[in-house]
Amino acid sequence: MSYKITVLPGDGIGPEITKEAVKLLDAVGETYGHNFEFQYADIGGVAVDKQGTPLPEQTVQHCESCDAILLGAVGGPKWDDETPDRKPETGLLGIRKQLNLFANLRPAIVYDSLLDASSLKRDVLDGADLLIVRELTGGLYFGKPRERREGEHGLEVIDTLHYTEAEIERIIRKAFDLARLRNKQLTSVDKANVLENSRLWREVANRVAADYPDVELSHMLVDNAAMQLVNDPKQFDTIVTENMFGDILSDIASMITGSLGMLPSASLSADGPGLYEPVHGSAPDIAGQNIANPLATLASCAMLLRYSLHLKEEADAVEEAILKTLREGYRTGDIAAIGEATVSTSEMGDIVCQQI
Amino acid sequence: MSYKITVLPGDGIGPEITKEAVKLLDAVGETYGHNFEFQYADIGGVAVDKQGTPLPEQTVQHCESCDAILLGAVGGPKWDDETPDRKPETGLLGIRKQLNLFANLRPAIVYDSLLDASSLKRDVLDGADLLIVRELTGGLYFGKPRERREGEHGLEVIDTLHYTEAEIERIIRKAFDLARLRNKQLTSVDKANVLENSRLWREVANRVAADYPDVELSHMLVDNAAMQLVNDPKQFDTIVTENMFGDILSDIASMITGSLGMLPSASLSADGPGLYEPVHGSAPDIAGQNIANPLATLASCAMLLRYSLHLKEEADAVEEAILKTLREGYRTGDIAAIGEATVSTSEMGDIVCQQI
Ligand SMILES: CC(C)[C@H](C(=O)O)[C@@H](O)C(=O)O
Ligand SMILES: CC(C)[C@H](C(=O)O)[C@@H](O)C(=O)O
Repeated sequence: MSYKITVLPGDGIGPEITKEAVKLLDAVGETYGHNFEFQYADIGGVAVDKQGTPLPEQTVQHCESCDAILLGAVGGPKWDDETPDRKPETGLLGIRKQLNLFANLRPAIVYDSLLDASSLKRDVLDGADLLIVRELTGGLYFGKPRERREGEHGLEVIDTLHYTEAEIERIIRKAFDLARLRNKQLTSVDKANVLENSRLWREVANRVAADYPDVELSHMLVDNAAMQLVNDPKQFDTIVTENMFGDILSDIASMITGSLGMLPSASLSADGPGLYEPVHGSAPDIAGQNIANPLATLASCAMLLRYSLHLKEEADAVEEAILKTLREGYRTGDIAAIGEATVSTSEMGDIVCQQI
Repeated sequence: MSYKITVLPGDGIGPEITKEAVKLLDAVGETYGHNFEFQYADIGGVAVDKQGTPLPEQTVQHCESCDAILLGAVGGPKWDDETPDRKPETGLLGIRKQLNLFANLRPAIVYDSLLDASSLKRDVLDGADLLIVRELTGGLYFGKPRERREGEHGLEVIDTLHYTEAEIERIIRKAFDLARLRNKQLTSVDKANVLENSRLWREVANRVAADYPDVELSHMLVDNAAMQLVNDPKQFDTIVTENMFGDILSDIASMITGSLGMLPSASLSADGPGLYEPVHGSAPDIAGQNIANPLATLASCAMLLRYSLHLKEEADAVEEAILKTLREGYRTGDIAAIGEATVSTSEMGDIVCQQI
């Protein structure tokens, strides 16, 4: 089969890590007899520099006409003083919104061989395996009004936390569907003791639960969930939450894997192409040095194969290759214990490819 | 000297733990020659049950006419189905707002003797000592509109993240003042790559920084801050952030001390009485069993002595007494290692009192 993949390298370490991902998909193609056709497009700071906007129209077109999208990362201090509509992040938020990528899947698993890289104790981590399902196209990220204005008491600023019932319902259903494929335990995280949003969220979750009698639904307040992720991550199977809470919780969850450099993500719409990206950022401080950890991006390829191309065997093979590479002791700097030997970004990519 | 303290026991374990705090203040009074006069008032669920509202007018009056307020905790599943204006939490948010308690101080220190109770590794924790300064009377907690309504696309719900420039400035100044008394490093946490609020927040922080050339200001995104608190808490000295972010980050920070049962807090206004409460909740599951950990409430008494009554020596004595009690091996269930002997709530209170 032939598949069209749009690659959005972006800023900072984005180009280096997506390069390894392309290499990996080619290796998968060779072994399993698929043909991947890659089309490249600009997003983020590089798009601002070259085309004056973080999300050029042509990039959106490329993304709409492909089977799946692979994104590196966007942002960096270079664009700190840009106006909001010229911020790299605006490009990322724009593509999420325009493609209706409402369901952001962020799995965090413990790699045995990385247990020592985490700041958490071994017995706290051992066996942890959770999936955060984050709503990605609503909430504070997109609500209107969002503005600065002169109010009764001088200058004031507002952002709006907004959800429709339909938006809440579709992400909750998605999370129930995913929980069903896992350990059938869904924790819905909100702040129902304070937010009107969370009260509706909880009602919808309870209502939808009736359609999933085989899945156990529980509710947890966001402050408690943040703490419990640190205290006892093993208690969680699938977590569903709104956009901003999901942003924060998934970064905490990354600590389970020892490094943010390990966390992949998939952003899915109802029927269009999905977008796959590492959870980590563009790490401008180490960009261009060939030392970044490409594993989150490679693991994102596994999700791409699984969710967008429905190539289960190939997806499993990639995940197995990453596991094996780690087990054999290969480490980039971020996951190496003190004194441990490290490999470069491209070496790490090569080694994973060889395992396919 | 004579001091008037308003005690708001509240719900769940609230009555048990405030009882120990009153005992402790009496012990301090006896040793140092002060007289504490306690007046009790209802707040939260108990106030709903007895008076039909979570914040009776008389409670507010008591709080306005005293030197300091000591609060246990509010809330519990019993009131889950109450309307928002009859929720226990509405009483807590109400008293914070009515007394203008905009500055919430949540210190997290590592107790040597509790290092093993934390899910974090010993070397990650050792020496961590940070203060979270949380804005407490603005943001999503209080912004209007907050409502459910019929929109263009069916039922929808909104909460409003609102701050005035003046509100931002006063909490930032407070945090700079506090950082000055500590290690002179202030981390301002926001989500400036997404929120309009955070952009103004960052501008104000940078502007105010000019008045504090001796304090080093840095900025961190909230998702990264959540992760860094787990990854390397020792990098922080003083953190300042808005209301909701502060709620989440302080619960994470509690993991540094091994248990949420250890974290005290002070909520201060510009000139009125301060309110002191443990960061943990009402723990209805263990209420009435005399097994709750009273140490967060006792440590809150130390903050009360320090910040509202300006009794530095007495505050130091209370903190020293808690340290000594822990060093001597006394533990409630939540901070005991497996197999370690435990003491009850009241025994723990007695032992700390004896150390005064
Ligand atoms: C870069 C930023 C806008 C983004 C977000 O907040 O969603 C990032 O933190 C993420 O988690 O993907
Ligand atoms: C009980 C709840 C309303 C409160 C808050 O969110 O402020 C609590 O979590 C806290 O941190 O004091």
